[in-house]
Amino acid sequence: MIKQIRNKKSFLCIGLDSDIDKIPKHLLSEQDPVFSFNKAIIDATSDFAVAYKPNTAFYESRGLAGWQSLERTIAYLNTISPKVFTIADAKRGDIGNTSTQYAKAFFEKLAFDAITVTPYMGKDSVSPFLEFEGKWSIVLALTSNTGASDFQLIQNNEPNDQLYQRVLEKSKKWGTDENMMFVVGATKAEMLVQVRKHIPNHFILVPGVGAQGGSLEEVAKFGMNKEIGLLVNSSRAILYASSAKDFAEAARAEALKLQQQMAKLMI
Amino acid sequence: MIKQIRNKKSFLCIGLDSDIDKIPKHLLSEQDPVFSFNKAIIDATSDFAVAYKPNTAFYESRGLAGWQSLERTIAYLNTISPKVFTIADAKRGDIGNTSTQYAKAFFEKLAFDAITVTPYMGKDSVSPFLEFEGKWSIVLALTSNTGASDFQLIQNNEPNDQLYQRVLEKSKKWGTDENMMFVVGATKAEMLVQVRKHIPNHFILVPGVGAQGGSLEEVAKFGMNKEIGLLVNSSRAILYASSAKDFAEAARAEALKLQQQMAKLMI
Repeated sequence: MIKQIRNKKSFLCIGLDSDIDKIPKHLLSEQDPVFSFNKAIIDATSDFAVAYKPNTAFYESRGLAGWQSLERTIAYLNTISPKVFTIADAKRGDIGNTSTQYAKAFFEKLAFDAITVTPYMGKDSVSPFLEFEGKWSIVLALTSNTGASDFQLIQNNEPNDQLYQRVLEKSKKWGTDENMMFVVGATKAEMLVQVRKHIPNHFILVPGVGAQGGSLEEVAKFGMNKEIGLLVNSSRAILYASSAKDFAEAARAEALKLQQQMAKLMI
Repeated sequence: MIKQIRNKKSFLCIGLDSDIDKIPKHLLSEQDPVFSFNKAIIDATSDFAVAYKPNTAFYESRGLAGWQSLERTIAYLNTISPKVFTIADAKRGDIGNTSTQYAKAFFEKLAFDAITVTPYMGKDSVSPFLEFEGKWSIVLALTSNTGASDFQLIQNNEPNDQLYQRVLEKSKKWGTDENMMFVVGATKAEMLVQVRKHIPNHFILVPGVGAQGGSLEEVAKFGMNKEIGLLVNSSRAILYASSAKDFAEAARAEALKLQQQMAKLMI
């Protein structure tokens, strides 16, 4: 991935939180409107993005039709050349044999490169995902929503011993920096300094630039490592840049803007 | 539900972790083998069970065909009379607008009564599920797997202040005992005493009786409240009681055995 990042001068991930109620109305007459939307977005932005991240909730909420849009989307993503990195934003995690089933669903059946996983159930809920050769698990550490403070920031006995720090310290031992990444929210960019003390070499997926706020400059300043080590996601700002027939061009312009900012930060 | 529990003298939940590799071979020639299996299990056991809990991973791992089996299963469950309680064991949870999409998927599109949710992302990841009238959220507190000790048992400054206790204390305020339950693993039955101090009135879903171990007597002794307040799940011990043509009768016999034990414990 680092080669792609250098080539494209971009560490942009585009979140395909594609909501049938928000996509341009003229697409609704298509056979699979959400897939048509995704395909147009991918075609318009793949020069500037290194990763795509469909959010499974937006597909599941449409039942069978939604699952079919998701299948078509990952199949299409896997035809893009040069290859883009694909993430199922599914936030799964369960006891061992169940996590194995989820891993099969997203790594084998749908052929994603990576999946987001939730750490609450501990090692045997995450390890099954790590057993799939060449695939990545992206563990939630510090999320960008307000509820992140409810449990993730619980302070233990010592300084720098909050729950998300325990999650980083413990879970990094379950895999390597070649099959694990961590989710760290951009609304707390200065916390990336602390995060980097725990995981200097791992990739970090930053979910919150764009509609969720967060400054790209700060994320790069505090979170970048020698190998860049960042994927910064933008969803709504790109997907819904325009709701008219020019939605794909508008998305391309937004993606280009972010890529240009990223290129400057990579020098 | 308490009426059903009294009528059937049972607080048995049957987990439909239906694995196409484990169901009887003679079903594989059916049009939808997993649905045929589930239907036979439901028909054979609904006299003795008050709830059914399909585990979404086992359906997602089969892609579109699996999602279709899940749709058929919940549709069939919703025809059973008297009504049985239905739980999507999905362990979802994400930022607000995404959790809303998951709630739509399982409460509206699939018409489940309840869903299991993971608490790591805090209040705004759970609250959207609670906004659906007449539906239930079942929050993971203390799970029955070995990895439960990695984070759920982290001890804070004071006695009886472990992470799962924080989860109980905080999350019980997000809803009521009429729209929330909690998952508490049966391998730690004596911990139910502590759990009941935090949530005397809520229903508890106990996942781990049967293949995962755990004693029904202890669960009842430590976990039961005035309104019973328990759903005890069994999956593999019932589903795979026999792998021959008599699988449904064997499942019925296992369910009856558990129901009879439960009836005694309810006196």
